[in-house]
Amino acid sequence: MFDFEIHYRCPHTSARVASFSTPHGKVNTPQFMPVGTLGTVKGVTSSQLEEINAQMILANTYHLHLQPGESIVKESGGLHHFMNWNKPILTDSGGYQVFSLGKLNKIDDGGVSFKNHRDGSNIELTPEKAMQIQMDLGADVAMAFDQCPPYSATKSEVENACRRTHDWLGRCVTAHTKSDQALFGIVQGGCFPDLREESIKSVLNFDLPGIAIGGVSVGEPSSEINKIVRFLKPFLPAKVPRYLMGIGTIPEMAMAVANGIDLFDCVLPTRLGRHGTALVRDERWNLRNARFRNDYQPLDTSCLCETCLYYSRAYLHHLIRNEELLGLTLLSIHNLSHLIRFSRSMTIAIKESCFSEDFAPWQKDSIARHTW
Amino acid sequence: MFDFEIHYRCPHTSARVASFSTPHGKVNTPQFMPVGTLGTVKGVTSSQLEEINAQMILANTYHLHLQPGESIVKESGGLHHFMNWNKPILTDSGGYQVFSLGKLNKIDDGGVSFKNHRDGSNIELTPEKAMQIQMDLGADVAMAFDQCPPYSATKSEVENACRRTHDWLGRCVTAHTKSDQALFGIVQGGCFPDLREESIKSVLNFDLPGIAIGGVSVGEPSSEINKIVRFLKPFLPAKVPRYLMGIGTIPEMAMAVANGIDLFDCVLPTRLGRHGTALVRDERWNLRNARFRNDYQPLDTSCLCETCLYYSRAYLHHLIRNEELLGLTLLSIHNLSHLIRFSRSMTIAIKESCFSEDFAPWQKDSIARHTW
Repeated sequence: MFDFEIHYRCPHTSARVASFSTPHGKVNTPQFMPVGTLGTVKGVTSSQLEEINAQMILANTYHLHLQPGESIVKESGGLHHFMNWNKPILTDSGGYQVFSLGKLNKIDDGGVSFKNHRDGSNIELTPEKAMQIQMDLGADVAMAFDQCPPYSATKSEVENACRRTHDWLGRCVTAHTKSDQALFGIVQGGCFPDLREESIKSVLNFDLPGIAIGGVSVGEPSSEINKIVRFLKPFLPAKVPRYLMGIGTIPEMAMAVANGIDLFDCVLPTRLGRHGTALVRDERWNLRNARFRNDYQPLDTSCLCETCLYYSRAYLHHLIRNEELLGLTLLSIHNLSHLIRFSRSMTIAIKESCFSEDFAPWQKDSIARHTW
Repeated sequence: MFDFEIHYRCPHTSARVASFSTPHGKVNTPQFMPVGTLGTVKGVTSSQLEEINAQMILANTYHLHLQPGESIVKESGGLHHFMNWNKPILTDSGGYQVFSLGKLNKIDDGGVSFKNHRDGSNIELTPEKAMQIQMDLGADVAMAFDQCPPYSATKSEVENACRRTHDWLGRCVTAHTKSDQALFGIVQGGCFPDLREESIKSVLNFDLPGIAIGGVSVGEPSSEINKIVRFLKPFLPAKVPRYLMGIGTIPEMAMAVANGIDLFDCVLPTRLGRHGTALVRDERWNLRNARFRNDYQPLDTSCLCETCLYYSRAYLHHLIRNEELLGLTLLSIHNLSHLIRFSRSMTIAIKESCFSEDFAPWQKDSIARHTW
């Protein structure tokens, strides 16, 4: 059910073009997944997501557990039906959010208890509970429950978190009994190569249909992400999708794809959109800027999304300046389209054996020059 | 260019089915016009407006004059191009807003000066200026610049406003020189029949392609609106569209159509949508209400808009409770669709000679029962 077929390989890097089958259709990789935290990609309808060729979206177990609760989602026919998205969905495990958003009360080998960031009530999460919630949500892919330490953690803290994550992975695998849902394991280990190596080996003990690199995007500089991915490359299993969690900038994605990564997600495109910022090539444009006041060109002349086809920079400037909802929606649509289109361009380049030439992330100019 | 063709008449009331030709296509009447104050129907894209069969939208001269200014709109190719709406547009004259939003500094026969409600700067508006701005915006229909007194105004205040409005109408007609834009006159006169009669006769002195009833929706009870419309009915010119300004509730629209009104506009559907309220039949539902938490039915089972086709009440409740942008967009789409669909249903009923039976506003139950 969760076949992963590799169609093309870059002759010069570890980049590959593949497809990952799920109960809700195939995901072509490399692919960027829009984030729909609460079962909604903020400000964007599902038909607008289809129009920009979104293939798989991510939703957050932590947030959906708090609101509306997995029982409501399950009763309504599952997350696909609830949010009207009939293509693949991946849910994270809540691990990242528990450690970054929640106010932790207690953490031990059993699980964690934390304060609901909304109403202060006490919530407990264990590997078994995280699996139950994700099975109730009913996404195509569930993620293992992990402990995700911040970049500032000491080596012994990261080591502890790794040990716990590996122990929890075993419990997740046992508790996860939904055959039409894939369970992906998560590699932790912070910036410590020996811990990363140990972690990926532990994950590989389980024959899972996908693997994720977690513990990135936790405050470390971009160069560290590249180091971690390059270090893990020789250990990555060949025949399953590889997902770099929380990453979604052009240079980071290009570098990761060159090192064999297939899937990405990031809240940045929608978050930036809601703050009036557009992703154009490898730049970020603040549409509030007065220089756009009478700029009647399309936002990105190379982009074919609804925003770029039908609206001008001057109009977007006007909407953002006046805090019009439509501005946030139109910029979110464009920013998501930008990264999905970037995924597609990398795919074509890999197929045509020009990926290393066109997208080599160490040649930063080539990305900016390339018309994708 | 601005032909108005009457296709059907109700045998029992003054209701009629007609079409009004504009440079951007025909408007079928009776018709509800969504309001796009700042050149955007709040939270709704133009393709979403097309999907709910919006035919003509309204934009506000006062707001667009302040932001982004008519010169930007003109330079960008006119309002249709600026906001990506290639169907008919009507702009109001700013009169209503000057008197309701602006802090008036001075009003005399020449015009008005007022404080910009955004930055406190002084703005002057005269009939000639209001025409120039509207010609620059380039809508299909422009409205005469009028003085719109509140419901609380005394008879002598309303009388003064009427005299000024009539004087200004003459100046508007002289100043308006754009042949591909229709100019509609506005009838004032508050709740005073003699002033209303005098006002409509003054407007009829000019052979204009459309007439509007203004000075409603200024704080008076609904029964007063009905009285004004019924009183004016025998004076209304037969062969031009008749527009009841600022009105857009089901019973008011039905009553007005029965009295020969063709066009409506109202900010309520989008404003209510942004506050989490849905229009369903002749009721208003607050989607925050806990009763919707696990109600998995479509919002309105008789509606075919995107919101009702693809999302449940439980999902909308979830979005509204969590202040998700998508909730505001989906409710705005439904609420607009509701009034456009209501216009369409009245049209069909008039064609099929059952309007007086199905929509007679004095039989309130019949509207609620009728499946439109």
